[in-house]
Amino acid sequence: MPEYDQFTGFQVKSPETWTTFHKQKFDAKPFADYDVEIKIECCGVCSSDVHTINGGWGSQHFNDGLSVGHEIVGRALRVGPKVTLIKEGQRVGVGAQSWSCLECRQCKNDNETYCAHQRDTYGAEWPEYPGIISQGGYSSHVRTHEHWVFPIPDELPSHIAAPMLCAGITSYSPLVRNGAGPGKKVGIVGLGGLGHFGVLFGAALGAETWVISRSRSKEEDAKKMGAAGLLATSEKGWNEPHKMTFDLIISTSNNFGEGFDLAAYLSLLDVHGKFVSVGMPEDSTLKISPQQLNGSGCLIGASHLGSRREMLDMFKLAAEKKLHSWVVEVPISEENLSKTLKDLHDNSGAVKYRYCMVDYDKAFGA
Amino acid sequence: MPEYDQFTGFQVKSPETWTTFHKQKFDAKPFADYDVEIKIECCGVCSSDVHTINGGWGSQHFNDGLSVGHEIVGRALRVGPKVTLIKEGQRVGVGAQSWSCLECRQCKNDNETYCAHQRDTYGAEWPEYPGIISQGGYSSHVRTHEHWVFPIPDELPSHIAAPMLCAGITSYSPLVRNGAGPGKKVGIVGLGGLGHFGVLFGAALGAETWVISRSRSKEEDAKKMGAAGLLATSEKGWNEPHKMTFDLIISTSNNFGEGFDLAAYLSLLDVHGKFVSVGMPEDSTLKISPQQLNGSGCLIGASHLGSRREMLDMFKLAAEKKLHSWVVEVPISEENLSKTLKDLHDNSGAVKYRYCMVDYDKAFGA
Repeated sequence: MPEYDQFTGFQVKSPETWTTFHKQKFDAKPFADYDVEIKIECCGVCSSDVHTINGGWGSQHFNDGLSVGHEIVGRALRVGPKVTLIKEGQRVGVGAQSWSCLECRQCKNDNETYCAHQRDTYGAEWPEYPGIISQGGYSSHVRTHEHWVFPIPDELPSHIAAPMLCAGITSYSPLVRNGAGPGKKVGIVGLGGLGHFGVLFGAALGAETWVISRSRSKEEDAKKMGAAGLLATSEKGWNEPHKMTFDLIISTSNNFGEGFDLAAYLSLLDVHGKFVSVGMPEDSTLKISPQQLNGSGCLIGASHLGSRREMLDMFKLAAEKKLHSWVVEVPISEENLSKTLKDLHDNSGAVKYRYCMVDYDKAFGA
Repeated sequence: MPEYDQFTGFQVKSPETWTTFHKQKFDAKPFADYDVEIKIECCGVCSSDVHTINGGWGSQHFNDGLSVGHEIVGRALRVGPKVTLIKEGQRVGVGAQSWSCLECRQCKNDNETYCAHQRDTYGAEWPEYPGIISQGGYSSHVRTHEHWVFPIPDELPSHIAAPMLCAGITSYSPLVRNGAGPGKKVGIVGLGGLGHFGVLFGAALGAETWVISRSRSKEEDAKKMGAAGLLATSEKGWNEPHKMTFDLIISTSNNFGEGFDLAAYLSLLDVHGKFVSVGMPEDSTLKISPQQLNGSGCLIGASHLGSRREMLDMFKLAAEKKLHSWVVEVPISEENLSKTLKDLHDNSGAVKYRYCMVDYDKAFGA
């Protein structure tokens, strides 16, 4: 009899074999007083999954195998005795973060994603259970502290809600924290998984939202999502008519190297406008001279996920405005995970605009 | 008879001979309806003067010679027929900017330093008078549009007020624009001309203001200026006790290359804290990965001078709080300008904390 309860997941054994998934059992963290145990229905596919399993973000805890996936929607099977935020049977979601101290100034100030002790939904050792590694949503179940479990509004189908739990909140948080709304002009660099939420939420919040993309190939989609227009950086003088008119640019770019003309993007910003990166490149550095920032007093920053409060607000907005993620559903299996993650690695720009693994009952039983 | 009125200045003829000053006449811009003609009393010495005359910031308009100096205090000799902001005989100052369009959104919004058409007090062609180059304060007189002429409060001696017109406002503007005040913790990187104003104004505004310096050699001075303390970056673990506690860091550093550990500075910032550079390096680039910004969602930016409104507010604060610049007075002459600017170039850290050229009457007549 195992020391721990066990769940089943589609796991990768090492970065060297990251395209091979093994359906196998793993030790679950012990069920604790504030935990919610969730039977998973579906899980969105995030580039973080690739960066983690291929070792691009550095070494990870693999042990016998690691399940990734952190855009999880499922049903609360049971809740711990101290849980007050979630009810048994409720449809709920879990995103990319599953732990923080909840006691520091950051945590007490709706900034728990910036807690110095924050831990990820997968690949992180649970502080209370050394040796037990958090496992993501390509699994049958997940156990998560209620603070990182979010009720899903009835208006949103599970596969539509799932990608909002990482890609959605990652775009939503910097928009609201930087005042995106009526009278503001917002640019979204890159129309992929993150970017399409930038447009959906930017427009829903009332900001004049523009897509900034290499070509015009996604212009029609952008407009359907609510964009005011698209700027194609491959066109000469693309930035000229819009210089110093943007209040905020959210960059989803993963590559700040060769060909990324930061100065051209910054030229779009109005006085003290902000360029906020939400992409997480494996190895890419922004190079700026103070002179480039000086002409408009603009700022360059980054943003990491969003708070519980923002997650609830985001779902409320999505439900009220009937915002639907653009999702490609893929039945979960060893083969399909391999194919999907390879695809995302090789050609992420072709996804329109988020994969979501579904059909969990077939893989794990009802 | 010359086509233009002429003033006398201490001019440099080319970047190759930047340490040689020539006392000579130059063409003044024609006196216009909104102009104030100022007989100069003194002028602070700014690193910009060096960067300009030695070519470090690129090519400049030298013509027969260029007078630099943009921390100018003097007496309004006469005012143009449309001038309403300045009275004849008033003691006034001129800073580093002397022109902008005054019609664009930036100009109309107290952001005239970010006007796309802004021009410097020296070395810039006057838009209305092609071929006539603006000349700075190492001269007998200056003619400036009233928007860039500021009454000096009686409480402030001229040589104390002068350095506030560039170094002062450069530090003051980002402090007030980023909320420095009671309950806020502010860091000032580098205790030089700019930095000492960062401390004086940061403390006067009510912020807990720390100096961040290589060594402790200026700690006593820092405290006299109002600093809460000094962090010495040469000490191991210097940033540890202060991690994620600063709301704002104003960097006066001119060198972001080897030895400048940006990540360590950023580690000091609280969630969405800002690192604002006011230094203007000749050739230095900040390198950041989004991951470095991501842990606190902090922002990196720059700031350029300050608006007329801020200039007036700054002088009011300085007068009320009896803030005195720390100034070393130097009688103006060819030899002394050469020595002073070479000194600033070679060993700017040794200046305590601003040179100001004085004794103009001896050089130019009463």
